[in-house]
Amino acid sequence: MASGKTQHDMNEQTAIDMACARKRTTVNVENVGDFLHHGKDEWLARSKIVSILEKDALFDKSQREFMNRTQKYERGLAMTNRVYELQTFHKWNEQETKLAFSVIDDQLPIALHNVAFQPVFMLQADSTLLAKYAHLIATRAILGCYLQTELGHGTNVSRLETTATYIPETQEFEIHSPTFTSSKWWIGGLGKTATHGVVQAKLIWEGKDLGPHLFFVQLRSLDDHTVLPNITIGDIGPKAHGGFASTDNGFARFNHVRIPRENMLSRFGGVAEDGKYVKPLHAKLSYGGMLYIRANMVTGGGWLIAKAATVAIRYATVRRQGEIGSDGLEKQIISYPSVYYRLLPILSRAYMFIQLGRTLTNAFDTMASRLKEGDTSLLAEMHATTSGLKIYVSTNGVQDLETARRSMGGHGYSAFAGLGRLYADYLPSVTYEGDNFVLDQQVVRAALRSHKTLSESNPPSTSTLSPSSYYLRHLVNQPSIPSSFLAEDWRNPSTAILLLELRAAFLVQAHAQNVQQQLEDANVNQRLSKAVTEAFVAAQVGGMIQGLSAMSERDKVVLTKLFLLCLLTIVEGGLTDLLSLGLIRPATGSGMRQDPTLSLRVTIKELCEELLPEAIGLTDAFGFTDWELDSALGVHDGKVYEALWQRARTEPLNQTEVPAAYELGSCGFWNVNNEPVVALNPIEYAGGTRCGKYVSLNYQGKSARAKIVDLCPSCGLSGIDLSPAAFQALAPLATGTMNIDWNYV
Amino acid sequence: MASGKTQHDMNEQTAIDMACARKRTTVNVENVGDFLHHGKDEWLARSKIVSILEKDALFDKSQREFMNRTQKYERGLAMTNRVYELQTFHKWNEQETKLAFSVIDDQLPIALHNVAFQPVFMLQADSTLLAKYAHLIATRAILGCYLQTELGHGTNVSRLETTATYIPETQEFEIHSPTFTSSKWWIGGLGKTATHGVVQAKLIWEGKDLGPHLFFVQLRSLDDHTVLPNITIGDIGPKAHGGFASTDNGFARFNHVRIPRENMLSRFGGVAEDGKYVKPLHAKLSYGGMLYIRANMVTGGGWLIAKAATVAIRYATVRRQGEIGSDGLEKQIISYPSVYYRLLPILSRAYMFIQLGRTLTNAFDTMASRLKEGDTSLLAEMHATTSGLKIYVSTNGVQDLETARRSMGGHGYSAFAGLGRLYADYLPSVTYEGDNFVLDQQVVRAALRSHKTLSESNPPSTSTLSPSSYYLRHLVNQPSIPSSFLAEDWRNPSTAILLLELRAAFLVQAHAQNVQQQLEDANVNQRLSKAVTEAFVAAQVGGMIQGLSAMSERDKVVLTKLFLLCLLTIVEGGLTDLLSLGLIRPATGSGMRQDPTLSLRVTIKELCEELLPEAIGLTDAFGFTDWELDSALGVHDGKVYEALWQRARTEPLNQTEVPAAYELGSCGFWNVNNEPVVALNPIEYAGGTRCGKYVSLNYQGKSARAKIVDLCPSCGLSGIDLSPAAFQALAPLATGTMNIDWNYV
Ligand SMILES: Cc1cc2nc3c(=O)[nH]c(=O)nc-3n(C[C@H](O)[C@H](O)[C@H](O)COP(=O)(O)OP(=O)(O)OC[C@H]3O[C@@H](n4cnc5c(N)ncnc54)[C@H](O)[C@@H]3O)c2cc1C
Ligand SMILES: Cc1cc2nc3c(=O)[nH]c(=O)nc-3n(C[C@H](O)[C@H](O)[C@H](O)COP(=O)(O)OP(=O)(O)OC[C@H]3O[C@@H](n4cnc5c(N)ncnc54)[C@H](O)[C@@H]3O)c2cc1C
Repeated sequence: MASGKTQHDMNEQTAIDMACARKRTTVNVENVGDFLHHGKDEWLARSKIVSILEKDALFDKSQREFMNRTQKYERGLAMTNRVYELQTFHKWNEQETKLAFSVIDDQLPIALHNVAFQPVFMLQADSTLLAKYAHLIATRAILGCYLQTELGHGTNVSRLETTATYIPETQEFEIHSPTFTSSKWWIGGLGKTATHGVVQAKLIWEGKDLGPHLFFVQLRSLDDHTVLPNITIGDIGPKAHGGFASTDNGFARFNHVRIPRENMLSRFGGVAEDGKYVKPLHAKLSYGGMLYIRANMVTGGGWLIAKAATVAIRYATVRRQGEIGSDGLEKQIISYPSVYYRLLPILSRAYMFIQLGRTLTNAFDTMASRLKEGDTSLLAEMHATTSGLKIYVSTNGVQDLETARRSMGGHGYSAFAGLGRLYADYLPSVTYEGDNFVLDQQVVRAALRSHKTLSESNPPSTSTLSPSSYYLRHLVNQPSIPSSFLAEDWRNPSTAILLLELRAAFLVQAHAQNVQQQLEDANVNQRLSKAVTEAFVAAQVGGMIQGLSAMSERDKVVLTKLFLLCLLTIVEGGLTDLLSLGLIRPATGSGMRQDPTLSLRVTIKELCEELLPEAIGLTDAFGFTDWELDSALGVHDGKVYEALWQRARTEPLNQTEVPAAYELGSCGFWNVNNEPVVALNPIEYAGGTRCGKYVSLNYQGKSARAKIVDLCPSCGLSGIDLSPAAFQALAPLATGTMNIDWNYV
Repeated sequence: MASGKTQHDMNEQTAIDMACARKRTTVNVENVGDFLHHGKDEWLARSKIVSILEKDALFDKSQREFMNRTQKYERGLAMTNRVYELQTFHKWNEQETKLAFSVIDDQLPIALHNVAFQPVFMLQADSTLLAKYAHLIATRAILGCYLQTELGHGTNVSRLETTATYIPETQEFEIHSPTFTSSKWWIGGLGKTATHGVVQAKLIWEGKDLGPHLFFVQLRSLDDHTVLPNITIGDIGPKAHGGFASTDNGFARFNHVRIPRENMLSRFGGVAEDGKYVKPLHAKLSYGGMLYIRANMVTGGGWLIAKAATVAIRYATVRRQGEIGSDGLEKQIISYPSVYYRLLPILSRAYMFIQLGRTLTNAFDTMASRLKEGDTSLLAEMHATTSGLKIYVSTNGVQDLETARRSMGGHGYSAFAGLGRLYADYLPSVTYEGDNFVLDQQVVRAALRSHKTLSESNPPSTSTLSPSSYYLRHLVNQPSIPSSFLAEDWRNPSTAILLLELRAAFLVQAHAQNVQQQLEDANVNQRLSKAVTEAFVAAQVGGMIQGLSAMSERDKVVLTKLFLLCLLTIVEGGLTDLLSLGLIRPATGSGMRQDPTLSLRVTIKELCEELLPEAIGLTDAFGFTDWELDSALGVHDGKVYEALWQRARTEPLNQTEVPAAYELGSCGFWNVNNEPVVALNPIEYAGGTRCGKYVSLNYQGKSARAKIVDLCPSCGLSGIDLSPAAFQALAPLATGTMNIDWNYV
């Protein structure tokens, strides 16, 4: 290569590559966007809100990475306030305000007020309490939190230790934390923000423990926000990876705190005016709130995965590295199988979860309106579906965020890449709203119940099967399974759906038997729960593909491939089961071992390659702005290197050329100015021969040790100059000159 | 349950549970500790150093979570200095100083000086340069970094853009960054610390591009640490999850910077005094450094996984949640299959990697001493082994850290749990020292080469096979494979080893053929690389089990089970391959589908249960102190709740009862004091009727908008009181009172 040649500019190439990729896309980005947003209106509403927020200095993200936790919390509060100001100003309706909160990528202290405190209160408070507080809650004169978890108990709500003892004499409850471990813990918004809370406490009534019930408890003064007497409240401290920094997850202890009887949330039961206890009629009714959160988690997870896909696919489109292509340039990394194989399935899952979320919230709305009429028939099914999907979306989402981040190599580890931050905040979703490993048990239990009902029905009838257990129908009418699968079989979505349904059905059947023979392995619930949920998801994806019929031919073809990719990667992840159940079989006979999974794997590769030219269009269709993504690697124009550079310039360490921590003494050591060090007078300095040795310092009974690092030209005979750290070890800095004793050690 | 009953104290139970678990252990913890540390001496040396560091206030970790990045960087510098002071003070030898650095769980700015800059310099500088600088480097009068990666290039070193053009007239090189993307980027220690660096730049000689070579370049003044002319240097900014916070990964641009000819690292070749270019003889020799780092990563990863296992197993031993056991208490969560199934394999991998690391560093030492004699015969094998194991330890390590964290439920997400921090710092290990997905290709290439050599040898001879490809011998002498595996088969380590070796052999064989037919799938390199490495690891674990013979019977039994568990979980992770290759086969015949993997799964469960009573002993044997773990959930005495509480108290947000950000105006809004708000004089306040409305403020040509939130009792007629944010929008805060125009909007 001749060196005189004009250097190819990799930086300029990024914008060219991005523009080319946009041109190459054949789908109609706008139509696909409408499809994702379920119509033009929602997309427009969203865009309008985004454009308001991103122009508002309060929602600026450029300093976020440099803030400490207190600043992040304060910013969270300020953003919360501003959303409500904007709501008033722009006359947003409830849905629009919700949308505004949903585009803010920080965990706000108000979150639990909105998704737990208020809904639970509105559903379960009786009319007296509603009349008194509903308005204050709606206008946020009262800020609430939901106090369930304790230091000692999360999953096992039945063993919560906080008590609410009924005092008939005064018609009061006494809320009390009898033990150290009964301290409420992890409560979002409790640490500094909330004035009130809904407290889970076990009701002690006439000396009997009646188990957990909910109570409305004031925590802080509405006058000056100080904590009320006999309550101890605080923030539980920072979270892993700096996640949830802007939320004040808190703790609380109650020392015999009295609340009036009417503060029990007793719409469905409680302690009546006459002091009698009325058992809540529909215990399940109180699940409503949790189901709502879980249903929303699917949509939320979908859009989060969409962000990860957008950032990583954009970066992989403009990053060139490695092999030289026909144009003499290195290849775009998205063209490497090991890169697109990681990223395109993520894209397909984003589409899948977004669609699934919509189905789910619709189903939830139906259930909720039936519930209002006292009809609980849809609850069990909703519970089964949302449990499985909550596990599924959070487990996949956390993993996809990291896979996408990792695909970007070194730059993906920069905070400016943006995916680390999303991961940090999303990570606990595998734990809250039901720890995934515990929820797995519930999914399996529901599956076993359906299986039992089915196998006990005589003649076998599939009519009892709800959508979440519909896969079990194959146990009654067993379909025929081909002995091997060719590429064209995999192109048909029904192959994947059938296999995934059969897998779930056979695993549940085998498990039902193994349980009886105590032949369970340690991982069985995780394996089964996944199989069962994936059977449901596969059938849903089948429905999504059918639902594409209204779209243009080209869009339909592409989206069908995308959903098919989603299905086939689920099959790939379930191969161990499919193979061990004999649903996919190795070729018998001798000779070279034929890999029976090869046709599937190669089809996945081919699908990816067919989708590659559409990848940028399919991510553009999500409609994220640069402000929303806040990622130097995911910028819309592709100029990732410039964006990285611009952001690096803002790093606080770069505001000084020589770090403040450095001080070079005559001795030639670098030393840090928070170390106890001294400079000696010229005589004692003795030409540097004492450099690095130590002196002991004594002043009014205190003593310290400090290193000799420098010459003090102005110090007189026996004079010595102390660094602030050395000084402070002996006296307050304000002291000024002091007469100290010192000698060499 | 009667409520009068004395409450069982869950907090006190923690210490009881931990003590019981210690008592239950049957292994000799001290002997197992010696085994892990390869003798008593090393353990003692380590303990001595730990006890020195943990008593030194500079290594205190209690404030770490609350520091901003600049403070973390400064702490990193201070710790670095202190280690060297302690070295002098305690007369540590090189090995002991290394040990001291290895127990510090922060990424220090000195790291790359020690592991890359100095070793590369010492290996490749010629005698002139060594004479001049080796001493300064050894005493850290010079602090170095290793500048290879650029904004535009990491993996593909051959396309680095930085140039070093030889100027024969002056016998100088001109180091230059010709493009934006040629900026050096990610360089550890470069941002603020390093004074010098080894720069990878392509040598331009007589107009020809001769590819990347190494140059020794001064970056900052040794007098005042300012950056030298024509060099731009800075820190690249924060990293994902707050990882690597104490290291100043930096960028650098060179604008025609001249360095003397002798500054080329030219021990093995370069531009000679007469201006002639001498091609470096052994290009591979320069890999040495990288192999050394990779070999060390195995040991380092092992100890890191050990920390995760210790913390999570301790917490799971004292955390009780859920089902009620025979003692009336909830069960210890470690007794749940879904918990121990996650944690015990991690423990087994810690033991495996620690042992493997030792083997590897021994092999490295042998290779290094042969290299010194010019013998490069061991290089290729060392390269193959370390590539595969680097991938394996980092991928597993990152995952194990997260699995362990997640197993602890909500409290695992607290920063005080400690595992988040370890994860954040370890995460980039999958990317640096060779991106794992790129390295996979090298592992596969090496495997295909070995396979080719073997299949071309006639008669087929296994004598060419090195340890890393020894599994291929089975292609020549194919062993018989049982048609099904019973529990007792799995108890024999050789079953797992054989299966894993066969898997690798058959996959490589099939791949060699598929490559010719272009039947590759997109994930094949990842799948193969894993199979090949696991075959090697399995054989090594077999050796470890044999090596236990010197231990006491009881310890031997337990450690054998632990290593067996490691093997079987590897087999479990490879089931898809084993099934599709027909090495494990579903029962043929009709009726209920028998799961051919069940015996394996149940054996894993049983092994876990047999190991459970030993879990605390096996983690104690790592010998970590509480200071080392810095985890409230991993405290030695088991008092996790008290530890969490103590740490929560230190959260800065808890230092004020009412957050500083809150200010309650008379209007009754909560508002945040960094918002522009105003208080009105009593007349304009008009009894609160203007609350929430806005005023526009104008002063000397500037204007701002602010919300009315409060009454200003002391304000005179038309007077208005501005919040600092509102004030600052118009004039510097120092301005004091000013006459502004304002009116309602
Ligand atoms: C970011 C965040 C926000 C939160 N916000 C709130 C809030 O606002 N209000 C509130 O009340 N709570 C809140 N929580 C608490 C949350 O609800 C609990 O963390 C969650 O329910 C899990 O419970 P745990 O932490 O006690 O885990 P544990 O139950 O202690 O789980 C620990 C481990 O034991 C296992 N395990 C537990 N029980 C069983 C069992 N029966 N069988 C098998 N395995 C078992 C789990 O799988 C897990 O691996 C929050 C938590 C987080 C992380
Ligand atoms: C914390 C940290 C510290 C570091 N310290 C230093 C340091 O001190 N000095 C220094 O010089 N460097 C340092 N680096 C840089 C590091 O060496 C590079 O990040 C690493 O080599 C990966 O290169 P990259 O970032 O360019 O990734 P890329 O090569 O851009 O990789 C991006 C994606 O493309 C894929 N890919 C790339 N090439 C191919 C290919 N040929 N085939 C298939 N897929 C491909 C990768 O798998 C990855 O998914 C550091 C990095 C980090 C994260």
